[in-house]
Amino acid sequence: MEIGRVVGTVVSTVKSSGLNSFKLLVVTPLSVAEELTAANGPSSYVAIDLVGVGEGEVVLVTKGSAARVSDATVPTDAAIVAVVDSVQIGTQNAYSKT
Amino acid sequence: MEIGRVVGTVVSTVKSSGLNSFKLLVVTPLSVAEELTAANGPSSYVAIDLVGVGEGEVVLVTKGSAARVSDATVPTDAAIVAVVDSVQIGTQNAYSKT
Amino acid sequence: MEIGRVVGTVVSTVKSSGLNSFKLLVVTPLSVAEELTAANGPSSYVAIDLVGVGEGEVVLVTKGSAARVSDATVPTDAAIVAVVDSVQIGTQNAYSKT
Amino acid sequence: MEIGRVVGTVVSTVKSSGLNSFKLLVVTPLSVAEELTAANGPSSYVAIDLVGVGEGEVVLVTKGSAARVSDATVPTDAAIVAVVDSVQIGTQNAYSKT
Amino acid sequence: MEIGRVVGTVVSTVKSSGLNSFKLLVVTPLSVAEELTAANGPSSYVAIDLVGVGEGEVVLVTKGSAARVSDATVPTDAAIVAVVDSVQIGTQNAYSKT
Repeated sequence: MEIGRVVGTVVSTVKSSGLNSFKLLVVTPLSVAEELTAANGPSSYVAIDLVGVGEGEVVLVTKGSAARVSDATVPTDAAIVAVVDSVQIGTQNAYSKT
Repeated sequence: MEIGRVVGTVVSTVKSSGLNSFKLLVVTPLSVAEELTAANGPSSYVAIDLVGVGEGEVVLVTKGSAARVSDATVPTDAAIVAVVDSVQIGTQNAYSKT
Repeated sequence: MEIGRVVGTVVSTVKSSGLNSFKLLVVTPLSVAEELTAANGPSSYVAIDLVGVGEGEVVLVTKGSAARVSDATVPTDAAIVAVVDSVQIGTQNAYSKT
Repeated sequence: MEIGRVVGTVVSTVKSSGLNSFKLLVVTPLSVAEELTAANGPSSYVAIDLVGVGEGEVVLVTKGSAARVSDATVPTDAAIVAVVDSVQIGTQNAYSKT
Repeated sequence: MEIGRVVGTVVSTVKSSGLNSFKLLVVTPLSVAEELTAANGPSSYVAIDLVGVGEGEVVLVTKGSAARVSDATVPTDAAIVAVVDSVQIGTQNAYSKT
């Protein structure tokens, strides 16, 4: 899973019916080192929200067909599956939700 | 899901029968920041249209085997699953369909 | 799906039995812009042929497990699913099979 | 599978129920040459632990939907499936667990 | 499928039981042009051996969940599915097993 930050929302009226009951959130990938920082290379993407998150929160995102785990008919390739409370790298606290 | 723009169409006579009933559209990936811009790195690709979109529209694309959600026998790895009405990044309106 | 050009063939005697009935073709990715050009970054790869193509032809390739759509026991992650007749980008004709 | 090193842990209270019984570990990809070194390009990611590993251990990670093999309802796209005892490259010992 | 060369082996005692009956081989990706050369970008990875290959051999590797085709409970995302006898690029012989 990838660590990312929820930075926005997408509104869509015309969409595949399998997406109807989900919030569509924009997620920016974060690099994990001594602290979490914005990743350089990859671009933001859109994920469905399976756990109920708020903007700015640090989350775990599952990509690919595993993102459809709640229902195999949901046409998504990215799902927010967890809110991150903290990340520990070695003896360092890289991130704590405050 | 990836945000992209529909920029063209592909015509194919000789194709896998599972593709027969779909429009084949060329999609260019967009980067999501304060506004939507053409992504640098990745190349355009071809997606089937599940929602009925027009050229120039901004869409959500699902990649990988989740793209086959309408029918598991459709041999595609990319499907347009939504037309984007608007993208909100923080308090900024990054995109609005006009 | 990715647009590519068939540039060669692979011969293999010792292989997984699921590959026995397929031609193994070498495909080079093409970038889609005002015309089709050789893509810079990604390398060529090997795909099974589901539609009967010839060398030099421009094709659509499906990657990942969707490539197994003809038979779930075929151990491939790339399949040629269409021969491209033409690609239209905006009002430009980017490619026509001649 | 990718060779990586376990460098940390993630704590999450609010998460998809399918993740409840798994440790969430931060893995850094390693490059495999004459010895194992930190990979430059790709970022660290989070994997579930299927074999019981400790921090600092070198492991094999399976990505994508194959990571759900223990249970198709687990919403992960990365799983630690093996602890690496040794890696032999040609006649060189690239890594030995000590 | 990707063309690669088998360059080494991985030994693992503690592993997911689905991997028990497979050899774990280190594969380096090869670029396919007029001849096969070591690919620059991507790193080596570990694949299970489905066909019985030896070190130094040029092989086809299937990535992703299609790699599990022999048995859906094998937690791998890469499998060696063929030994390459020869690669023909246009009228050139890019590789012949000797």
